[in-house]
Amino acid sequence: MKKIMDEKDYGIVAALHKGAKTPFRKISKRVHMSESAVRKRVKRLEHLGVIERYTIIVNPSKLGYDTMAVVGLDVSPEKHEEVIEKLANLEEVKKLSTSTGKFMIMSTVWAHDNKELTDIILRKIGGIEGVKKTHPSIILERRIKDVC
Amino acid sequence: MKKIMDEKDYGIVAALHKGAKTPFRKISKRVHMSESAVRKRVKRLEHLGVIERYTIIVNPSKLGYDTMAVVGLDVSPEKHEEVIEKLANLEEVKKLSTSTGKFMIMSTVWAHDNKELTDIILRKIGGIEGVKKTHPSIILERRIKDVC
Amino acid sequence: MKKIMDEKDYGIVAALHKGAKTPFRKISKRVHMSESAVRKRVKRLEHLGVIERYTIIVNPSKLGYDTMAVVGLDVSPEKHEEVIEKLANLEEVKKLSTSTGKFMIMSTVWAHDNKELTDIILRKIGGIEGVKKTHPSIILERRIKDVC
Amino acid sequence: MKKIMDEKDYGIVAALHKGAKTPFRKISKRVHMSESAVRKRVKRLEHLGVIERYTIIVNPSKLGYDTMAVVGLDVSPEKHEEVIEKLANLEEVKKLSTSTGKFMIMSTVWAHDNKELTDIILRKIGGIEGVKKTHPSIILERRIKDVC
Amino acid sequence: MKKIMDEKDYGIVAALHKGAKTPFRKISKRVHMSESAVRKRVKRLEHLGVIERYTIIVNPSKLGYDTMAVVGLDVSPEKHEEVIEKLANLEEVKKLSTSTGKFMIMSTVWAHDNKELTDIILRKIGGIEGVKKTHPSIILERRIKDVC
Amino acid sequence: MKKIMDEKDYGIVAALHKGAKTPFRKISKRVHMSESAVRKRVKRLEHLGVIERYTIIVNPSKLGYDTMAVVGLDVSPEKHEEVIEKLANLEEVKKLSTSTGKFMIMSTVWAHDNKELTDIILRKIGGIEGVKKTHPSIILERRIKDVC
Amino acid sequence: MKKIMDEKDYGIVAALHKGAKTPFRKISKRVHMSESAVRKRVKRLEHLGVIERYTIIVNPSKLGYDTMAVVGLDVSPEKHEEVIEKLANLEEVKKLSTSTGKFMIMSTVWAHDNKELTDIILRKIGGIEGVKKTHPSIILERRIKDVC
Amino acid sequence: MKKIMDEKDYGIVAALHKGAKTPFRKISKRVHMSESAVRKRVKRLEHLGVIERYTIIVNPSKLGYDTMAVVGLDVSPEKHEEVIEKLANLEEVKKLSTSTGKFMIMSTVWAHDNKELTDIILRKIGGIEGVKKTHPSIILERRIKDVC
Repeated sequence: MKKIMDEKDYGIVAALHKGAKTPFRKISKRVHMSESAVRKRVKRLEHLGVIERYTIIVNPSKLGYDTMAVVGLDVSPEKHEEVIEKLANLEEVKKLSTSTGKFMIMSTVWAHDNKELTDIILRKIGGIEGVKKTHPSIILERRIKDVC
Repeated sequence: MKKIMDEKDYGIVAALHKGAKTPFRKISKRVHMSESAVRKRVKRLEHLGVIERYTIIVNPSKLGYDTMAVVGLDVSPEKHEEVIEKLANLEEVKKLSTSTGKFMIMSTVWAHDNKELTDIILRKIGGIEGVKKTHPSIILERRIKDVC
Repeated sequence: MKKIMDEKDYGIVAALHKGAKTPFRKISKRVHMSESAVRKRVKRLEHLGVIERYTIIVNPSKLGYDTMAVVGLDVSPEKHEEVIEKLANLEEVKKLSTSTGKFMIMSTVWAHDNKELTDIILRKIGGIEGVKKTHPSIILERRIKDVC
Repeated sequence: MKKIMDEKDYGIVAALHKGAKTPFRKISKRVHMSESAVRKRVKRLEHLGVIERYTIIVNPSKLGYDTMAVVGLDVSPEKHEEVIEKLANLEEVKKLSTSTGKFMIMSTVWAHDNKELTDIILRKIGGIEGVKKTHPSIILERRIKDVC
Repeated sequence: MKKIMDEKDYGIVAALHKGAKTPFRKISKRVHMSESAVRKRVKRLEHLGVIERYTIIVNPSKLGYDTMAVVGLDVSPEKHEEVIEKLANLEEVKKLSTSTGKFMIMSTVWAHDNKELTDIILRKIGGIEGVKKTHPSIILERRIKDVC
Repeated sequence: MKKIMDEKDYGIVAALHKGAKTPFRKISKRVHMSESAVRKRVKRLEHLGVIERYTIIVNPSKLGYDTMAVVGLDVSPEKHEEVIEKLANLEEVKKLSTSTGKFMIMSTVWAHDNKELTDIILRKIGGIEGVKKTHPSIILERRIKDVC
Repeated sequence: MKKIMDEKDYGIVAALHKGAKTPFRKISKRVHMSESAVRKRVKRLEHLGVIERYTIIVNPSKLGYDTMAVVGLDVSPEKHEEVIEKLANLEEVKKLSTSTGKFMIMSTVWAHDNKELTDIILRKIGGIEGVKKTHPSIILERRIKDVC
Repeated sequence: MKKIMDEKDYGIVAALHKGAKTPFRKISKRVHMSESAVRKRVKRLEHLGVIERYTIIVNPSKLGYDTMAVVGLDVSPEKHEEVIEKLANLEEVKKLSTSTGKFMIMSTVWAHDNKELTDIILRKIGGIEGVKKTHPSIILERRIKDVC
């Protein structure tokens, strides 16, 4: 893969990751470029797909979600894709990945409380055809770090 | 916990999560409020900490990170906090959580390739005092969904 | 959740947990209140559901139960509730919980001897539709502590 | 072991387990004996140690304990007894057992929230010398049944 | 259980376990009894079922069995008994037990070589209806000790 | 390995395994040989080490051993041999093997009751230097089959 | 098994394993034999099947295979052979073995990238009837050593 | 990575992998090129490192190795590299890899018999400083397939 980014691009991405509303003027100082050059590069990074989306980080507990769990799933291999699609349609499933290891599907579930979590795991996830086993772990504390 | 948000707040959060640059004018139509009312509510949501940060979602492989792994860690219980702090200081560790289950620490690591991943796991993470075992899984595919 | 109990309530609950027949007169001295005030508070704690039931702790081996086991169950997710109901109807199952981890159902079984335990696990529990695997552990020693 | 109890004794124990305050008059009808005979038998059951203690069942969440966990412990075999003693002295540990299987010590912990649970597991339990690994599972729902 | 054996009985059992052909004369000296008293006690121990059978310990590798394996079996709980009966009828299965833990059935298999072992596990044992998983371990060295 | 036994030898071994006191006269009929030929062959089988020892099968529960457990041991690799020797010297350990799989040492322990078993595992076995983890399973039912 | 090879044979095999194109002249010096004697012995080793095939060791990443995984398979025991045959027919499966332990089938898969690996595991391998679970591990670094 | 090989190169590699002594004349027909063009390309493939080495596949059991095992190793993370180096120096270890999953080091060991295997695992591998646990699996049957 040929390098599509130079050091200045990394600096811009890091700045926007830390704060997507950081004024270009401030970023331009950090990377020693003109404001308009920063603007052009951001456009290019968006165009290249390096920047996929502008978003917000929300505090789950302030939204009323007091229980977050990572649920490993044992799925009949031939149903893997169908299960992934159905999980993606569940509003309570916030993240999904296929990975190596004991559970090839890992999903992140947000629930208002343990009762709701149980219901989501057993009825909503467990009710999907092809799901053979659900293995939940509760997230006790989490920390998201800066990219780059 | 008394409810701090009503339906309109949820609508605003959902809209910003999908696109943090969505113009207030567009959001105001979706939630049937005036633009200035939306602006006020966003300020309040920021103030309350519901919105923690504006950020960007980057495409790791476009940044040159071709290998992403979730690394479960077995740590001497009395060293747990120290290890968490040291992991948080490793640039390559992008996410960290304490959870119930077999591995109480789960970390997400981004590496440029398998060689670098091996090095991060064995030397950088494995070299932290108190880390007894590292159990990596490679993320083969991932999907992040919208909040709310 | 707003606090429904003060320090004196905790003192009363602790005293009754240690001995449900402790005379109110004795409790009243410990919490520095009049006997009638204690009586009123106990009524309120019963009414609020803090005190769910008065009961006795029995010695299983004196009742002839020489083997106690915790049995983890692997259950088809869509049958979870039915299995829980059927387990609850088995006289030999003394406690039941749904939990996170490898086995989402944990049950406590009392048996007169190993032979009966085998029979309960294989025929009574194993015979319930939806139970895929039973994983028994024998309790070698146990200790119940005081609440509060 | 020679039988120390007959059918009537079992009936009395069952009645008291269901409600330790059940009037002897009511029990006497159920087991077809005089009230004074019931009283004598209860005394005998207490004396024999069949009835170990009169107690109350409390509702943990009403006491403010919103998180209950079963924590399996991996302990250096030669420290097993010391660890058991230290765990027994921790107020937050409500039950303790030694059992066969992967984790020879299983403890039940009550915490006000996930943050406190993390602290109890990592600092209080994890800090005991000889504890090599803690493996927590969160109890999502539980049900206690009647004895006999 | 009342004690059915005294110290002299234990001495006799130990002697016979070490060598079932040990002359009574020699045993009588060890336990300080007359030869005829030993003979009577042996009869009684046989009658009581303490001594179940006289047998020989053979050297499996001298019989041509170069591979011994312990095979843990995961079995549909409702088929447990049928599977046990069918295993008992397999000539290659030399020992069988039901136990607590991950695999409720443990079987000891003798095979002439790895090829035959694979065949026994996959075709003979794996072919029994209700057997869901076979988990073999090879015995590398074994040592049988004396009883009492 | 050249074959040291023919069909008749196998017949003799099988007969003696089933009953070590089976009269040679009876065996001679089964294998179609003269009594003296059987006698010669038995001598040869003893000499070759095919028959290692004459012994008795005892009923553990009739000897007062009500609890039998298989204990898997996790041992520091460099202490493996020392631990094996020390286990072999423990009277309560009746069988010992080194095998492939999770626990390289498997031991069979006989105890009079659960209390004694706990003591043997934690103090006697767990106290041996180099033993890092003990993983007991209780044998609920066992069946020993005939050899050949 | 009688020895079919002497020291010189081992020397020849070792030399050819290190380099199958090593001139016989060079080998003849190393094993102190004439070139024609070496030639004769090589023919014999081929004939005996000690040397099964002359081959090349390729560098997978230079062939475009950037991801190598070992995939453990859980297979319905009665389908074991069919599954093995079908796996052997998959071009992407480069090695296959039946072994003791948790997964009786271990397969080595080469893929151009993680996306293709996921596809091979889920669709090609997971789609084989009888495959119940796939457990992939990514090979991060490997080293092949010389034989003899 | 830009493609360094075309279809003809793959054909040549496949042919040599199947038989490193296949005459160029035969290969030239298969890939529709002149013999000298094949010769040139083989040189180039050697030069590029696509072909790493010419070697022979030997039959381990014909060399007297009757037991092959894959041994998973649990190693103190900070000793990982030292252990890898020491394993690489053990003659009995024929392959080595670092991988994701439960055991980060997997080694393939050839032994003449189970006794020697036990010795290699416990003394040679287990004796390396930093090795905390060895988990051997016996290879019952294996099959190596063609590359490309």
